[in-house]
Order: sequence, then structure tokens, then C-alpha cells
Amino acid sequence: MSADVVPLRPRGAEPSLSPILALTAQGMNSVNTVILDRMQSEVPLIPALAGHLISGGGKRLRPMLTVAGAELCGYQGNRHHKLAAAVEFIHTATLLHDDVVDGSDLRRGKAAANIVFGNPATVLVGDFLFTRAFELMVEDGSLKVLKILSRASSIIAEGEVDQLVAQRHIETSEERYLSIIGSKTAALFAAATRIAAVVAERSEAEELALDAYGRNLGIAFQLVDDAIDYDSEAEESGKGKGDDFREGKMTLPVILAYARGSAEERKFWQDAIAGFRTDDEDLAHAVTLINRHDCVEATRERARHYVQRAIDAIAVFPPSAAREAMAEAALFAVARRY
Amino acid sequence: MSADVVPLRPRGAEPSLSPILALTAQGMNSVNTVILDRMQSEVPLIPALAGHLISGGGKRLRPMLTVAGAELCGYQGNRHHKLAAAVEFIHTATLLHDDVVDGSDLRRGKAAANIVFGNPATVLVGDFLFTRAFELMVEDGSLKVLKILSRASSIIAEGEVDQLVAQRHIETSEERYLSIIGSKTAALFAAATRIAAVVAERSEAEELALDAYGRNLGIAFQLVDDAIDYDSEAEESGKGKGDDFREGKMTLPVILAYARGSAEERKFWQDAIAGFRTDDEDLAHAVTLINRHDCVEATRERARHYVQRAIDAIAVFPPSAAREAMAEAALFAVARRY
Repeated sequence: MSADVVPLRPRGAEPSLSPILALTAQGMNSVNTVILDRMQSEVPLIPALAGHLISGGGKRLRPMLTVAGAELCGYQGNRHHKLAAAVEFIHTATLLHDDVVDGSDLRRGKAAANIVFGNPATVLVGDFLFTRAFELMVEDGSLKVLKILSRASSIIAEGEVDQLVAQRHIETSEERYLSIIGSKTAALFAAATRIAAVVAERSEAEELALDAYGRNLGIAFQLVDDAIDYDSEAEESGKGKGDDFREGKMTLPVILAYARGSAEERKFWQDAIAGFRTDDEDLAHAVTLINRHDCVEATRERARHYVQRAIDAIAVFPPSAAREAMAEAALFAVARRY
Repeated sequence: MSADVVPLRPRGAEPSLSPILALTAQGMNSVNTVILDRMQSEVPLIPALAGHLISGGGKRLRPMLTVAGAELCGYQGNRHHKLAAAVEFIHTATLLHDDVVDGSDLRRGKAAANIVFGNPATVLVGDFLFTRAFELMVEDGSLKVLKILSRASSIIAEGEVDQLVAQRHIETSEERYLSIIGSKTAALFAAATRIAAVVAERSEAEELALDAYGRNLGIAFQLVDDAIDYDSEAEESGKGKGDDFREGKMTLPVILAYARGSAEERKFWQDAIAGFRTDDEDLAHAVTLINRHDCVEATRERARHYVQRAIDAIAVFPPSAAREAMAEAALFAVARRY
């Protein structure tokens, strides 16, 4: 097992997604073909609704991790294209169900599918994409891959329920929050990256290294997402800003602001998370309190910790353009402000 | 391949479920243990919500078909217990999502899960059960079984969307209706029965025979369900009577009453299915029209046709108590009035 130090980027240069986009361009082209092909159905509402989200400007980050992992492993085959498409279908299914569960208005900057097509169709097309994902995995035929992705899917579902239970509960701890995002977000990042090592038939150690890269990146990614919802310097995100606040979601900026706050501030958070203070001025006050205690920055700092762990995890692979691109993508994920 | 005539029951005797219940009692005991064990989670809401439905008086007909099929094949192992539990989880997941989609108040005679636990939790626990079903199948490890059940799951999801699209569309044809119930109901009956032949390593012909038994029984079962919703002689079903009518579902009794009706009657159906006539007196009028054209009996007659096909399909198996019990269960399914 090699243990090279991953080369650091020149001091001061902004991390960029360009290297990973270039690394995965050809592979993602094939993945996108599978995605568009396999979301078809004789029931026209299915591709219409699925396409609303799938063609709707998603970054396809998770399948990109599968493709990048395959490049890192020097994999020459094409099995990972179907599997990466399955990963994106699982993710899309959870987004559709999330939008129903949250009653979202916006997703990726446009009307959410539930607003355009209604909750019933959105639930059922989510189910369809989920089953289609499993069909793709079964076609691939690797029981090892099936085990990894079915386990991840089950963990995601558990995490989503756990998040729902924690919602509007101000006493939610950072540990509980980390457990929730580890399930609802990081499990799929981990599985998506790990399966690249499985199809490439690499060692157990390399498989676990890719799992750790994906898992830590996933945690960091969710931390930054949750920070952005309260970051007054961040650009408008694809979802409506302040949604987490109004929905009483217990994310780390709130957990930290509550822990660090005065008695008076804590009273505000109790009322707000319980759903009694959800106006625009309440949101503005929440942002003020979060800034007062540096909770956006503290959340980003936590994210940097996980990104460093992600980068160090892939140090078992010899230096390569792929490894460098994956490291830089992780740095980008945590530096982003949108 | 044997082609014995399946013995007919004595003329006049009422078909009974007792033989299939006796045949499958021991196997279903094991299946129930798997079901209760595998719906557990560290998130307590999951077993609470899943148990509301799973412990709620369901007949567990679909896993019973797997167990009965295994008996018919003389299978001595226990692989089918996990797989039968997976089938029940898939079914339960679709029921939970159906209740959200339909906004149901009642299920199996008690408050539906969405009423007790809310739509968000019901959607997410449905997802959890679905993923848990796949984990069980992956544990079994047969790619052939995985292919059959993942394909069936995908077809169910497509059928559910198709049913949603057809809802409130009075012009829905009997052919379209048969296609919808073939997907949303019969596909899982077929897969549940078929996998028994797969684990028992029986011939392709026997596998297809069990598939045909399950598929035809599933169609008959749904036809009878749909007849009962308008049958003034039927007992109260577990769901609220007249739900199909109020939801504008295009089931065969309505399709036939519309086809056989006068111009005036057709006008009523157009208004009713469009959602403009959903009072109790409108429902009473609908039942009058359906009775006037014998549409409940015509629907049952269609069901008897499919049950006969189901019984004839398993004539490839030599005579046995199992075959007799499965034939009688099919006759029972179509004669039932609840």
C-alpha cells in the first residue's frame, strides 16, 4: 500500500471543479445516455416528471464520483455507466420524496416537481426511479455491488425518517445531526465511490479508501449545504433560502447557535424551531444570532475537517491526475458559496 | 410435463381458505418471524409505523403464495422465507404510498397510516420497507430472483402512475384497465408465486406455470376487490365503501356501466368520475345504475375466467394436496364478498 502525501495545491489558488469535470467528461456522457434511456416508460407522465428534475440542472455529483473512482482505479470497462445511472436514480427518487415530505416550492431554482405535477405523481415516479435503479444493478449482476447499494438505500431511508423525527426538536445534538447526515447524504456518496473499486476488482483496502473518500466528502457536502442556508454572503441556492429555518430542520448552524447562545437567544431558537417564529424578520434575526457566534464559519470548519479526511483516504492510491482531480473537487465542495 | 385435469370440488360446496392456510401454516410462521425481525430499526418511528399496517390484520396473501408454491414444488429448504418477507415488504410499501396518494382515511378497517402518522413519515417508511425488501433479496443472493422481483417492482410503480393518469378519465377502456391491474396488482402475485419454482430449481415450464397462476389470480383478485366496492350485498370492506367512486377511479364496474348505459346515464358517469357528483346519494345512484346493467356480476364473471386460467395453469404439476389447496384458494378469492 502506497502512502504518498497528496500534493497540495499552490497556496492561494482557488480550488476548481474543472479537473474532475475533464476527468469524467467522457464517462459522464455515457452515464447520461443510460439515464435518459432508462427513465423512459410507456406511461408518458413518468419521463415527463422524472425529466423535470433529471434535466433540471443537477450536477450529477454522485454518478460523477463513480466515474472518477473508476478513473482512479484505471478501470477500462463500462459496467460503471449503468451503476452510476442507478446511483443518480436513487438520488433523484429521494429528492422527489423529500420535496413531497418537505412541501418544497423550489428545487434547483425552479418549481419543485410536487408543485408542477402534484404530490401523488411525485411519490409514485420516485418509486418508479427507485425500482429502475434496482433493475440496472441487477442487470449488472454483481451481488457485491447490489449489497453495497441496497444497504446504502436502506440507510438513506432510515436517515430520512430520523431527520423527520428530529425536525422541530431544538434539543437535537451535533452527534445526532452527524448520524442523520451520515445516513441521508454520506451513505450514497460512499457507496457511489466504493462501487468503482468493486467493478475495477481492486483490493479491499482500496475499496474502503474510496468508501471513506465518498463518506467524508458527503458529510462535508451536507455541512456546507446547511451552512449556505444561513450564509448571508452565499449566493441564492437552488432551493428557497431560509427553507431549513422555516421547516424547523435541526442543522449544525442552529445546533451551534443554540449551544453558544444566551438564555434569551435560546428562547428565540426554541420558539423558532417549534414553528412559532418563521417570518422574514425572524429569519433575519436567526442569521444575526448565527453570525454573532460564527456558526456558519464553524460549520465550514467542520466541513474542512471531513474534506481533509476524504483527501487523506485516497492517499493509498499512487499519485495521478485522477487522484489530484478528486482531491481538488473535495476542496471545491467545501469552499463553494452556492 | 403432466397435464392432469385438476379435480373439481363437489358441486355446491363453498370454496374455503382452510386448505391453503393449513398447507402454509408452518412456512408462514417462519415468514412472519422474518417480517417482524426485519422491520426493526434504531429509529423507533419505523417499526411503529410499519407495524401499524403489518400487524393490522393483513391476510399476507402474497407471501402465502410463495410458501404455497414452494410446497407445490416439494421444496425442502428455507430460502423462500426471506423472499416471501421481501414480497410482503414490497406490498406494504406500495400500500403506504397508495394511502398517501389517495388521501385514504381507512385501511383494513382502521385509520390509515397517513392519518395516524402523517404523509411525510408514511412516504419515508414506505421507502424504508422497499429498501429492506431489496436487502432481503440480496442476502438470498439469487440474481434470477432479484431480476424477477426488481422487474415486478418496476412494473408495479409504472402501473400505479398509469392508474393515477387514468383517474377521473371516463373514457378509460377495459383493455387499459386490465393493463393497469396487470401491473399494479398481478405483477407481484405472479412474481411471488414464480420465485417458489426458482428456489426449488424446477423447470422453466413449471416456473412459467406458477407465474401464470399468480398473474391470473392477481387479476381476478383485483376484479373482485373492484366489484365489492359497488356490491350492495358485500360486507363492509377494510377500506371505506365507495372510495373508488369518490376518488374517480376507473374500475371495471364503472367502465361497464358507462358502456352499457343510456345517454342520460353516461352524463351522470361523466360528472361523477370528473368529481362533480360524489355525495352519498350520488353513490347510491351509481350503485343503482351498476345493478341495472349487472356490472358487479359481469365483473365477477370476468374474475371467474381468470381464476379458471390460474387453476388450469398449475395442471402441469402432478395432483397433490398443495395443488388442490391452491386451486381452492383461487376459487375462494373470486367467491368472497369481503
